[in-house]
Amino acid sequence: MFLPISFIFSFLFSSTNAADFCVGDLNGPVGPAGYSCKKTATEDDFSFSGLLRTAGNTSNLVKAAITPAFSTQFPGVNGLGISIARLDLAVGGVIPMHTHPRASELILVMDGTLFAGFISSDNKVYSKSLNEGDIMIFPQGLLHFQINTGKTQSVAFVSFNSADPGVQILDFALFTNDLPTDIIEGTTFLDAAQIKKLKGVLGGTG
Amino acid sequence: MFLPISFIFSFLFSSTNAADFCVGDLNGPVGPAGYSCKKTATEDDFSFSGLLRTAGNTSNLVKAAITPAFSTQFPGVNGLGISIARLDLAVGGVIPMHTHPRASELILVMDGTLFAGFISSDNKVYSKSLNEGDIMIFPQGLLHFQINTGKTQSVAFVSFNSADPGVQILDFALFTNDLPTDIIEGTTFLDAAQIKKLKGVLGGTG
Amino acid sequence: MFLPISFIFSFLFSSTNAADFCVGDLNGPVGPAGYSCKKTATEDDFSFSGLLRTAGNTSNLVKAAITPAFSTQFPGVNGLGISIARLDLAVGGVIPMHTHPRASELILVMDGTLFAGFISSDNKVYSKSLNEGDIMIFPQGLLHFQINTGKTQSVAFVSFNSADPGVQILDFALFTNDLPTDIIEGTTFLDAAQIKKLKGVLGGTG
Amino acid sequence: MFLPISFIFSFLFSSTNAADFCVGDLNGPVGPAGYSCKKTATEDDFSFSGLLRTAGNTSNLVKAAITPAFSTQFPGVNGLGISIARLDLAVGGVIPMHTHPRASELILVMDGTLFAGFISSDNKVYSKSLNEGDIMIFPQGLLHFQINTGKTQSVAFVSFNSADPGVQILDFALFTNDLPTDIIEGTTFLDAAQIKKLKGVLGGTG
Amino acid sequence: MFLPISFIFSFLFSSTNAADFCVGDLNGPVGPAGYSCKKTATEDDFSFSGLLRTAGNTSNLVKAAITPAFSTQFPGVNGLGISIARLDLAVGGVIPMHTHPRASELILVMDGTLFAGFISSDNKVYSKSLNEGDIMIFPQGLLHFQINTGKTQSVAFVSFNSADPGVQILDFALFTNDLPTDIIEGTTFLDAAQIKKLKGVLGGTG
Amino acid sequence: MFLPISFIFSFLFSSTNAADFCVGDLNGPVGPAGYSCKKTATEDDFSFSGLLRTAGNTSNLVKAAITPAFSTQFPGVNGLGISIARLDLAVGGVIPMHTHPRASELILVMDGTLFAGFISSDNKVYSKSLNEGDIMIFPQGLLHFQINTGKTQSVAFVSFNSADPGVQILDFALFTNDLPTDIIEGTTFLDAAQIKKLKGVLGGTG
Repeated sequence: MFLPISFIFSFLFSSTNAADFCVGDLNGPVGPAGYSCKKTATEDDFSFSGLLRTAGNTSNLVKAAITPAFSTQFPGVNGLGISIARLDLAVGGVIPMHTHPRASELILVMDGTLFAGFISSDNKVYSKSLNEGDIMIFPQGLLHFQINTGKTQSVAFVSFNSADPGVQILDFALFTNDLPTDIIEGTTFLDAAQIKKLKGVLGGTG
Repeated sequence: MFLPISFIFSFLFSSTNAADFCVGDLNGPVGPAGYSCKKTATEDDFSFSGLLRTAGNTSNLVKAAITPAFSTQFPGVNGLGISIARLDLAVGGVIPMHTHPRASELILVMDGTLFAGFISSDNKVYSKSLNEGDIMIFPQGLLHFQINTGKTQSVAFVSFNSADPGVQILDFALFTNDLPTDIIEGTTFLDAAQIKKLKGVLGGTG
Repeated sequence: MFLPISFIFSFLFSSTNAADFCVGDLNGPVGPAGYSCKKTATEDDFSFSGLLRTAGNTSNLVKAAITPAFSTQFPGVNGLGISIARLDLAVGGVIPMHTHPRASELILVMDGTLFAGFISSDNKVYSKSLNEGDIMIFPQGLLHFQINTGKTQSVAFVSFNSADPGVQILDFALFTNDLPTDIIEGTTFLDAAQIKKLKGVLGGTG
Repeated sequence: MFLPISFIFSFLFSSTNAADFCVGDLNGPVGPAGYSCKKTATEDDFSFSGLLRTAGNTSNLVKAAITPAFSTQFPGVNGLGISIARLDLAVGGVIPMHTHPRASELILVMDGTLFAGFISSDNKVYSKSLNEGDIMIFPQGLLHFQINTGKTQSVAFVSFNSADPGVQILDFALFTNDLPTDIIEGTTFLDAAQIKKLKGVLGGTG
Repeated sequence: MFLPISFIFSFLFSSTNAADFCVGDLNGPVGPAGYSCKKTATEDDFSFSGLLRTAGNTSNLVKAAITPAFSTQFPGVNGLGISIARLDLAVGGVIPMHTHPRASELILVMDGTLFAGFISSDNKVYSKSLNEGDIMIFPQGLLHFQINTGKTQSVAFVSFNSADPGVQILDFALFTNDLPTDIIEGTTFLDAAQIKKLKGVLGGTG
Repeated sequence: MFLPISFIFSFLFSSTNAADFCVGDLNGPVGPAGYSCKKTATEDDFSFSGLLRTAGNTSNLVKAAITPAFSTQFPGVNGLGISIARLDLAVGGVIPMHTHPRASELILVMDGTLFAGFISSDNKVYSKSLNEGDIMIFPQGLLHFQINTGKTQSVAFVSFNSADPGVQILDFALFTNDLPTDIIEGTTFLDAAQIKKLKGVLGGTG
């Protein structure tokens, strides 16, 4: 005969399993490494059905939608350094020029044809036409874009090596807030008329 | 008038763009952080069409196939901390119990129905039936599995927060090499007959 | 004469010493980087006498015991990326096949003779007979084991490069919970009878 | 009497000091973590006089100059996760809207008055007028800018928590290469005429 | 026409901007990665005027002053891995031999002449006379010092790749506390008389 | 029947196992992350018998010996972030005041009694008398020491969360090289006579 298992590794068993994962508690304190951990995690915390199953609404300016499953939407990835988002692009749809401040991105095209590219620090363009099943890597922090150049709706999935990669869309960063027109003009060389036009479209003031 | 742009940021432009990315030179020295960088990168280095576009061959023991795009297969991700693989599972197919020693995994089900789960350090099972568009996170280093429990071929994509996450498949680790039967018996509590049977199937000796 | 020292570095002295260390507050919020820091640390927080001084109880199934000093047992290491555990193995004792999801392990044999090994991602076995004073490294996340093959009680110490490395023991992960027999059968190729036998021994159901 | 010191720590002394630092060998293999280490380092490798002592040439379009001391210019910082650059801005000079893909930036104003700002992922503007001795932090990967709004030449120093932070200047990324006008138009909503005007100024084609 | 922007990226916009930055809440829980994040950040959180604009008081023993802007003084850098401090050295002033336990340091001389150096693990001295505009790197954790060897007041700025690098000044560590004289004597080989003299000057007991 | 296993995971099997470990090639290029990896690793690369099995020679000034198994002595730990060393202290022996620039240390006392302590950035002393089986943590980069205060030879093992933690021994850093006496005097407040005495003992010049 033998003693109960709980005897063998009693200290192991008495420890919490917090370190295996840290499902984000969206109401707890937040630190530089992410959300605090929920006290008790359940099976449902690790999967996510709500958003990625159906197409995003592309009835908008860019004919496209981003549906993220970052730590805020999917707290199961909190602290685990990975996340995903769905891209939907109608014919002619565009994910506008943008960066992810804290992650590299890997795109996988599910349906349709995308023309995608990124620009390196020395201003070279690396672009490619991508079809179903193709993947492309966008190195951390660099400007990049995706365009549906095909004749059908396109769907893609983008993975990130951060649970909260951030998304900074160039036009939204410049033209949806109150950054004064002359500051934008001075720091981007764009004409004031161009700036005001885009502020008008995107809701910016100043 | 103004001076040439190359004058403005002459030091910036003279620097290499090695740091934006480090496309792996599979023939150069390898270090703890990955492959050495190719001297010159081209657009083709950042995309990958060969493997993920078509189904893996599932005519095998597990009725499943893993098609990785890790840094060895897709050197564009070298040093960028991200990679992906395609899973194909025929009806009844199984990705056997396994771990990734250096990464968390995020699965996205493209087609079909998978039953997937992981086991935490305190021996709890977190499992879920996943349908098209569902995602699930498998925290770093923990045993997990995927089974096609549906009535159709299933396809899924798994992302990793490492360019070389590793894959340690339990049965292959135990039964395809010359680890002696008595060592396996002593360290897994499996019966010798069971071990020998599986060594026979999987090609192990000893 | 000169002014008081407190005048010199007044800002330094007014700062907390939280960053030198972060003794875990087991009752505070937990985040992805570990426990919150205790407000005040004392000398006793940095040493640990209770567990490692005496042999673990090896009167059990595996004739072995693991006595960890991880952040949960020894909060002084919280946030410092290091921990230790004691292994006791009676004659014939075994630390069963297991992994540490978040750390590499370095074993040091104090007494006796151990046969130890790990299995790499490409299914090669790296094993060694270790005597007093020998060390061996088990790379992060890989299956490994230790067996007392000598004629005396064996003691070893294992260090980890994580304050909470985790321990996933293969048999406990598979056979102590309610993971259904058919799922285990399908994902490990073990026979149902073998699975049920081990579930019986180890307390699993299903 | 006592034995020679070399006897005491003979193994320590026989080891190389490579790990204390890794002065970059610009001609050796490069990896994801930076340049290979020079075999022998000298005192001169750790200091840098050439660039930061004198003002950059601001007789250019933006009336400004960036003089970096990154690992390519100052190999002593290779692998140490830190670097610096000097900014010179004539009256009205501008460091145009840009990002650093791999680092946060901390600016210190030495002379003059700068208006500086960054834009967060949720499109808020955080800006400030900075005078001599003021500092400001620009979080990793976010768009930011600096403008000399004073009546005198301005000098500032910017530190980075990377030996090779990268600099992606928005206008140069968009308008100095052959990224086609219609792609820029589609991904930035800028008018084609505006794009062509800036391509003309900045040397882009397509 | 098109739908409101808020429709396009509704999930993005609903997320907090916590991940772009984490301005330290000095009253909240502290974890291994730093302070908790303030719930709401304002423009003033990212700049810092109080300390670096004016000279530190050098009327003291070492004729020098360190004025830090670490996360405790400047919570805007919390979690961003970077900080800065101002050094003021009167003629003959000295920043005594010290280390930073968690960061490399990059010094920039603004005024005057400094003789600076560090000592590597293999006990080599790397020193240099630095003038205005010169920079020097002090690799992580190594003993280093700065001396004003010029004929005028000197000012320098030191950057760190940590928001809380720590400063351990050798003499203060040894001679301002109650570490017993015989322990210091035994571990430093200094004579008891020398130790007592310095304890007297610096306020130590024991 | 089923197809050969090599068919199932053909891409996995064709990849190298470099990422599981990176046994250091001491003759290859070195980078910031450590040594290059040996092309082929064997079982012997992962264990180490030569140094830790026997007592170090304590017939020296400090009556103590450090026997490291860092990546230079034990290349199997290269890139794995962990290492170990053996401490031998004769009666009255001392491991002098020192720091590890790149790692925290965890000591385990095997035999005898040690009095050990560290000093925090705010100059507090945390010390403890340690007996057989006791452990103590020394946080990264802080000054610490160990003294054999017992009546018998003492043995301890120290683990580090770095494969190359470095060791900077205060007296050796100050008194074994050509750092001029007046510089030491000015930066440590030690008397010139004391400095010259120790330079004489330890072999320093200048």
